Amino acid sequence: MQVMNDEYYMALALDLADKAQGQTGINPVVGCVVVNQGRLAGVGTHLERGTPHAEVHALNMAGELAAGSTVYVTLEPCSHYGKTPPCSERLIAEGVSRVVIAMQDPNPQVAGRGIQMLQAAGIQVETGVLEARAVSLNEAFIKYITTGMPYVTLKTASTLDGKIASKTGDSKWISNAASRTRVHTLRHRHQGIMVGVSTVIADNPQLTTRLPVPGIHPIRIVVDSKLRIPMDSKLLQDGISQVLILTTEQSDEDKAKALQELGAEIIYCGAGPRVDMTSAMKQLGQREIASILLEGGGTLNGSMLEEELVDRIILFIAPKIAGGLGAPSSFMFGGVEQMSEAVVLEDLSMEQLEDNIMISGKPVWRRELLDGQEKNSDKEG
Amino acid sequence: MQVMNDEYYMALALDLADKAQGQTGINPVVGCVVVNQGRLAGVGTHLERGTPHAEVHALNMAGELAAGSTVYVTLEPCSHYGKTPPCSERLIAEGVSRVVIAMQDPNPQVAGRGIQMLQAAGIQVETGVLEARAVSLNEAFIKYITTGMPYVTLKTASTLDGKIASKTGDSKWISNAASRTRVHTLRHRHQGIMVGVSTVIADNPQLTTRLPVPGIHPIRIVVDSKLRIPMDSKLLQDGISQVLILTTEQSDEDKAKALQELGAEIIYCGAGPRVDMTSAMKQLGQREIASILLEGGGTLNGSMLEEELVDRIILFIAPKIAGGLGAPSSFMFGGVEQMSEAVVLEDLSMEQLEDNIMISGKPVWRRELLDGQEKNSDKEG
Repeated sequence: MQVMNDEYYMALALDLADKAQGQTGINPVVGCVVVNQGRLAGVGTHLERGTPHAEVHALNMAGELAAGSTVYVTLEPCSHYGKTPPCSERLIAEGVSRVVIAMQDPNPQVAGRGIQMLQAAGIQVETGVLEARAVSLNEAFIKYITTGMPYVTLKTASTLDGKIASKTGDSKWISNAASRTRVHTLRHRHQGIMVGVSTVIADNPQLTTRLPVPGIHPIRIVVDSKLRIPMDSKLLQDGISQVLILTTEQSDEDKAKALQELGAEIIYCGAGPRVDMTSAMKQLGQREIASILLEGGGTLNGSMLEEELVDRIILFIAPKIAGGLGAPSSFMFGGVEQMSEAVVLEDLSMEQLEDNIMISGKPVWRRELLDGQEKNSDKEG
Repeated sequence: MQVMNDEYYMALALDLADKAQGQTGINPVVGCVVVNQGRLAGVGTHLERGTPHAEVHALNMAGELAAGSTVYVTLEPCSHYGKTPPCSERLIAEGVSRVVIAMQDPNPQVAGRGIQMLQAAGIQVETGVLEARAVSLNEAFIKYITTGMPYVTLKTASTLDGKIASKTGDSKWISNAASRTRVHTLRHRHQGIMVGVSTVIADNPQLTTRLPVPGIHPIRIVVDSKLRIPMDSKLLQDGISQVLILTTEQSDEDKAKALQELGAEIIYCGAGPRVDMTSAMKQLGQREIASILLEGGGTLNGSMLEEELVDRIILFIAPKIAGGLGAPSSFMFGGVEQMSEAVVLEDLSMEQLEDNIMISGKPVWRRELLDGQEKNSDKEG
């Protein structure tokens, strides 16, 4: 049994936002609940970029009950004309009495303006109710709006000894069916999915979302410095969702044209020989891709880690031991000299999925550590 | 992280229903979610009797996306013209492809008809998804629609030795503030609150809902066989919500008239000397009260138990020992001869609220046990 308070209603607004994860593109997920005189009066959630915001749906449902109501919204209402009119104006026009907000707009250029508009109109505003859950729902949106680069979730499945294949390269299957269902849910919840060309050559995957109910298929992104992707690859032929190929200026022009004729888009990321992943992420951001599920092999995972481009790591561990010193592992890169220099995960959670273990956490990057040190030295100065 | 399947969407529909608990009167709480091509397209919940059902709100939000969609609804869509047109017709008219239902209509006279209408129109129907949670949300509605009597939640707060007051009658306070906040949430979630006249005389309570956010005040019901209620009682004077007084034909006619002039309604329950609680429950059901929170003293609790009129018991226990053989206890009645005849609670849950313990369970009644035996002997016959 719950206690009725601001969190009681905000929890529903967050549930509404959560279930829209994966369908709002570069927009945040937002939920809204209108309460009048102790009664739920309207509910809404933002469905898709360019369509009405959560507040509009909830206020439409509330009708005359919007006047004098308390409105719970998971993100600060917008104050500007974007693809839809500003929600702050609508809230004022409806005559709501109080607005409870989980988190401010993370865009530093607009943060607080919606709140100011509401307050200037005499509306009582409260912020920070269940803020941590709201921030966690919009991790990708926050990264994208503040950096212009997509949020990257690195997913990998390995044995107890960190192997993603046997020494002969056999990898089907390491994780169990329950883990794989989680992975397909992750595909729905990210705009793009990224693999290296070696995975395409070895497995010929579709990289689509396959679940008990229909899901959204992510944009398929292949890292392919020399354009080695086979023309008959399923993902080039099936037409299920867009294909982007990240390559270098050293790649073959004729192959590029042939791929374009198949509908793939070629994105040039540096002079080569390897794809410049930082440039790649910037260009994907410019193409309005705000979240990517990285299902790379060890080498691609390793370079994404080295360039500090990974925002979350989700690791599925199966109770198997593969051995073989040269067998591929989840993260292949030069490696650290001292254990104290290892990449460390924070905000850790773990879950048992039958005989697999899912571990999720956020890598702490040196740039953040350096930022922290600077801030500390600022304080001391 | 969740897995995307039918339960994924039904959970949101149930969350939507849950938060409307307390505001739908004799109607059930119902939530609805429309999903089109792997995207959330509409959300709705039933707000109040006589206003649109959950399906209507969700389909309105979905607009053109209703066609070809899957609709998740926590209760079988209605098939009859009540205060609003039948939802099954609307679902058919919108051209939805699939309807997933948590539970059938508990009214045996209409159960399955909505499903049949949908199926006859070629819509794929599935039932029983998260059914247990749907049943638990609508325990009160199910009792009311199948028996015509209100669902009674007996709430009591006692010491470790089962006392609800000291031997001198002092009872303020036994439970802690966290427990009392739960009780006020329970008041919001029930249509009526019931006490004995002794409580009114001793404590002069308001019996309103007082929470950090506004709640709905329950209808106040006083069991008063001799109409001893003081005319200056707060609940008679404050006008905050309706007052019903359950009495007997032995009570004073002039006092009854005076109480009626104050706005209270008098309900006669038998010849006396004590109020016939079974008759009382039937008459309250006829007045469209489907759920009652019983905050009685030990004697009223005892007679409600003896007449098997209680559907759930929620007991708050404080870590105190009061002693005193004659001090009032939570349940005062003749008592059983053998421990094997004791009232037993099933569907038990427990929660620690700071230094209090909340125990919730459903009493198993002899009539159910007898029903069970009859069924068994039928099988053997």
